[in-house]
Amino acid sequence: MTQPSPASRPLLDRVAGPADLRALSDAELAALAQELREELIEVVSRTGGHLGSSLGVVELTVALHATFRAPFDKIIWDVSHQSYPHKMLTGRRHRMDSLRREGGLSGFTKRAESEFDPFGAAHSSTSISAALGFTVGRDMGLPTGDAVAVIGDGSITAGMAWEALFNAGAEGRRMVVILNDNEMSIAPNVGALSRYLTRLGGAAQGMSLRELAAGFEAALPEALREHARRTRQSIGGIHAPATMFEDLGFTYLGPVDGHSMPDLLATLRTVRSQADGPVLIHALTVKGKGYAPAESAACKYHGVAKFDVGTGAQQKSRPNAPSYTGVFGQTLTEAAARDPRIVAVTAAMPGGTGLDIMAKRFPRRVFDVGIAEQHAVTFAAGMAASGLKPFCAIYSTFLQRGYDQVVHDVALQGLPVRFAIDRAGLVGADGATHAGAFDVGYMTNLPGMVVMAAADEAELARMVATAAAHDEGPIAFRYPRGEGVGVEMPEHGQVLEIGKGRVLAEGDQVAFLSFGAHLSEIQRAVEQLAERGITATVADARFAKPLDTDLIAQLARHHKALITVEQGAQGGFGAHVLHHMANAGLLEHGLALRTITLPDRFIDQASPAAMYADAGMSADHITRVALGALGMGRMVSVA
Amino acid sequence: MTQPSPASRPLLDRVAGPADLRALSDAELAALAQELREELIEVVSRTGGHLGSSLGVVELTVALHATFRAPFDKIIWDVSHQSYPHKMLTGRRHRMDSLRREGGLSGFTKRAESEFDPFGAAHSSTSISAALGFTVGRDMGLPTGDAVAVIGDGSITAGMAWEALFNAGAEGRRMVVILNDNEMSIAPNVGALSRYLTRLGGAAQGMSLRELAAGFEAALPEALREHARRTRQSIGGIHAPATMFEDLGFTYLGPVDGHSMPDLLATLRTVRSQADGPVLIHALTVKGKGYAPAESAACKYHGVAKFDVGTGAQQKSRPNAPSYTGVFGQTLTEAAARDPRIVAVTAAMPGGTGLDIMAKRFPRRVFDVGIAEQHAVTFAAGMAASGLKPFCAIYSTFLQRGYDQVVHDVALQGLPVRFAIDRAGLVGADGATHAGAFDVGYMTNLPGMVVMAAADEAELARMVATAAAHDEGPIAFRYPRGEGVGVEMPEHGQVLEIGKGRVLAEGDQVAFLSFGAHLSEIQRAVEQLAERGITATVADARFAKPLDTDLIAQLARHHKALITVEQGAQGGFGAHVLHHMANAGLLEHGLALRTITLPDRFIDQASPAAMYADAGMSADHITRVALGALGMGRMVSVA
Repeated sequence: MTQPSPASRPLLDRVAGPADLRALSDAELAALAQELREELIEVVSRTGGHLGSSLGVVELTVALHATFRAPFDKIIWDVSHQSYPHKMLTGRRHRMDSLRREGGLSGFTKRAESEFDPFGAAHSSTSISAALGFTVGRDMGLPTGDAVAVIGDGSITAGMAWEALFNAGAEGRRMVVILNDNEMSIAPNVGALSRYLTRLGGAAQGMSLRELAAGFEAALPEALREHARRTRQSIGGIHAPATMFEDLGFTYLGPVDGHSMPDLLATLRTVRSQADGPVLIHALTVKGKGYAPAESAACKYHGVAKFDVGTGAQQKSRPNAPSYTGVFGQTLTEAAARDPRIVAVTAAMPGGTGLDIMAKRFPRRVFDVGIAEQHAVTFAAGMAASGLKPFCAIYSTFLQRGYDQVVHDVALQGLPVRFAIDRAGLVGADGATHAGAFDVGYMTNLPGMVVMAAADEAELARMVATAAAHDEGPIAFRYPRGEGVGVEMPEHGQVLEIGKGRVLAEGDQVAFLSFGAHLSEIQRAVEQLAERGITATVADARFAKPLDTDLIAQLARHHKALITVEQGAQGGFGAHVLHHMANAGLLEHGLALRTITLPDRFIDQASPAAMYADAGMSADHITRVALGALGMGRMVSVA
Repeated sequence: MTQPSPASRPLLDRVAGPADLRALSDAELAALAQELREELIEVVSRTGGHLGSSLGVVELTVALHATFRAPFDKIIWDVSHQSYPHKMLTGRRHRMDSLRREGGLSGFTKRAESEFDPFGAAHSSTSISAALGFTVGRDMGLPTGDAVAVIGDGSITAGMAWEALFNAGAEGRRMVVILNDNEMSIAPNVGALSRYLTRLGGAAQGMSLRELAAGFEAALPEALREHARRTRQSIGGIHAPATMFEDLGFTYLGPVDGHSMPDLLATLRTVRSQADGPVLIHALTVKGKGYAPAESAACKYHGVAKFDVGTGAQQKSRPNAPSYTGVFGQTLTEAAARDPRIVAVTAAMPGGTGLDIMAKRFPRRVFDVGIAEQHAVTFAAGMAASGLKPFCAIYSTFLQRGYDQVVHDVALQGLPVRFAIDRAGLVGADGATHAGAFDVGYMTNLPGMVVMAAADEAELARMVATAAAHDEGPIAFRYPRGEGVGVEMPEHGQVLEIGKGRVLAEGDQVAFLSFGAHLSEIQRAVEQLAERGITATVADARFAKPLDTDLIAQLARHHKALITVEQGAQGGFGAHVLHHMANAGLLEHGLALRTITLPDRFIDQASPAAMYADAGMSADHITRVALGALGMGRMVSVA
């Protein structure tokens, strides 16, 4: 692969929107796909982003837009990190350099961004449900066309995709699911469904797709129904092997070569003209297709930094401190070496959670269950009930998908599952869909749950040790995305006393009670206040549950103002401090209380620092809140 | 079916625990099942409860305990409303009259209740995940035997069961899943999987179970592996039809007659002695088996009140007021008659949610998606994106299972899905697993979500109208289980102003700010206070989000104490009131604030009134809190 010259893209230049694709011949569409691929590589080399997934669907994207009529038809990309080619064909080509930046294009589809994005995504496995929703709208007479869900073989392992398949198969309405099978989600896929799809993709069992599609096209609708009827009946005694999708009422077409423009066009045109029920098209694609460094990399350039197009070398900035994720993985591995009962569960994120570190040393004690957060939580609960010590490592935003299991299987039974909640708080380029905003609230209101947050990477090591030692019930600890703050790491993580915080600095007028990783901003605010002669106490609560009520009482007694700070939404740590203080009668003595939380809106992508500034959580904001609480809000202005 | 005489139960009398079953002959085990069934009908006629499900598994329960070695082996009942026979065989027979009562046996399995209940349940579809957890524990050397999950054909439609099947199939460990297929969950099952299982159950395609099991038993483990290998390979070109379960790596045995003791014993003994990987046994049962009134009823006596054994007539108490559920169903139906865009979604609860009322009049506008809350929410989001007005009616406790979808697909996109949250608060005999304790917290912290709670049934009608009229974004309204309070119903539900509460009574010293259906207790507390010369203001907030900040400021200004009241956990309505007051500077002027919420523990089954008393939410408690807030806590004692 050589560096492409700043090439002319004559076909791409003719495409202002999908309608222009319909003026191109099939051969031109294939050539267009090549132009699109080249430009995509160039663009992402400058912006970073989800290259491999997008490279895998270049031909599919062109063929879909050449066949269906978006935005009247609804093309719904599951997860939608593979939607870059779609964005380039739907009027956003010249904004691609703003991808994933503040004020720029989202790295995912987004309803607010384009009428060609009918349903936003970022979490996986939602597309079939959404497509069925649009289909019902169409059938009830609303001005909407066909719905097409494009879902990867990783995403289809999540339970909600199967709930949607069960429902769509029974409804029997005309809709299209394209299974984009590249045998990868982020890490290589796991699980029995993945094995099944691989066998299905490799099967020489039936007609090839082109033969089937040709027969399909020539046939009358009547005959199509007959075909569907026959495949549906096959389990009833006729000895034709049926796929799982046919078992559920879908017409199955495939496998089709997802990089062959003629095959894709023939298939999609046939389906568009003939389908009168749900159809699943099984397309085989290669993640990273057409860019050798991506095709050959283990993760297929799932998410990349900026890179050199010629060599594929990514520009990784040199970290100043270890990442929280790495500290978690390393510390847990060391704990596992000391305690043979420690096991760990990840839902398709061995690298993202740091559990790959433990898996290298203890491969049989780390369980990657696939994109299956619900199962992950209850599986961990079962292991805890058997006497093991499971760590369930799931990002804050994805743990939402296992919430009922946290309530019903873990908390209600008081089982000692350890929840390691990475990506707590705002996360940068992935934007609002990946923000870890709600976990403090949804965990802290559960009886018996211990909830911690790490102020820095040394604290994280202590919390891993604390969780490992805590057999009395469930315990959770949250920590942010990215690098730690560079503090010295303890040799062994010390076990913390449950429900006890610590005081880091003492002052007279205002007390900050921080929960989690926001201490550096608080420290800068303390310096700004000191310049105005105001001294501040800084305490690290460590625990949102149980609260350190002695510490709270002490801070309330000795200060004019108390300010809680957390990287999460209202209803979490600050709320529980307020509840306690109200019902303990600590509020009626004139203390000024303020809670600094994420605001009541979703925060758009930017650098994490810019996002926290947008959120009203910068040092300047904290200073202003403190001055306001002290009744000095109008006396000084802060830059 | 005639009224059984107070019969002697000679076999049952010999069973103090499962070990005693192993002393019985196969014929005696069949006779024991009949004794067990008779006593079960007698018991539930006195207690009420889940009769139909339990009647369907009498033989299976006996066969399981005769074959496996609980509590060393782990028998895990999915949902576990069918566990009454299991309870009767595991030392709890003589406590069955306390079933579902205060201080008595739970209507579900419960770890705290018996060592024979290794994993509690009540929500569906968790058993396979839990069983895999125990299996890993066994394989890592912990003192635990085989895990057996018993899951119904309704429960297996939920996505998390498939996540577990995918994982268990790939892990390949020895474990047993029994699919208890009675073609019913609560309502008749829906969806493509249900159709598939029906075909599978009726298929004459292969060997009958007994033939298969006999071959299985005679064979060496080697041959079993060979069989499993062959079925697993069948999709790869060999033209033997494979079931979906075999596609996923399970050995499939069935269908077996779930009421034939010889068939069940042969199958289970074979599996216990031979299985070296995951096995799925497909047992066909009849819900309500052996009790004619139950077998012939549409819902198969899923959950019953006390009844007359001879006639099957249930003792339903005559309600004083319409149920909230009925008011919701009726009001929504009337709204749907006026607005053709209104549609509704239920997850397998058409009767429980009241949507059966709308379905009678508008069958094509009510969607029962099966036990599939995740899909239900996103399907509703897709319908909203297409321009429809979906009402998504899910109990508070079950909406937890669609939480990520509420966040990611609804709130983030600002789509106008209407959430009708029934069973908010404590629910009585179903106990802690069904309590609707967390919804106010987990909905109110979502940006753009409007959150209402109905103080009475007339308010509920207004909130249905308000939700129907609210096209700007998502909106939710919660209401309790059971009867309304008997207020006059408005002819048309009036549309409420978003974010505005109402004042119901005015006083001077203390203000109650109530959210939802707890006004009658507050009213009694107000009377108790009046007897002491204390006058109280009572306000109904109606909205937890957006808050009525004018009302809050007014209450704060004119009273010495302000007390929030809600039937939910901390972190909900009261927390948001506190956040607002803190950050608006309303807390530093000496106002005494208290928040009355559910306490930070799970509340055991009792009557709802007894549960609220246990929770510290009775009128007496409210009075005490008010006196405490007014600094009069030690001056008066309350009965």
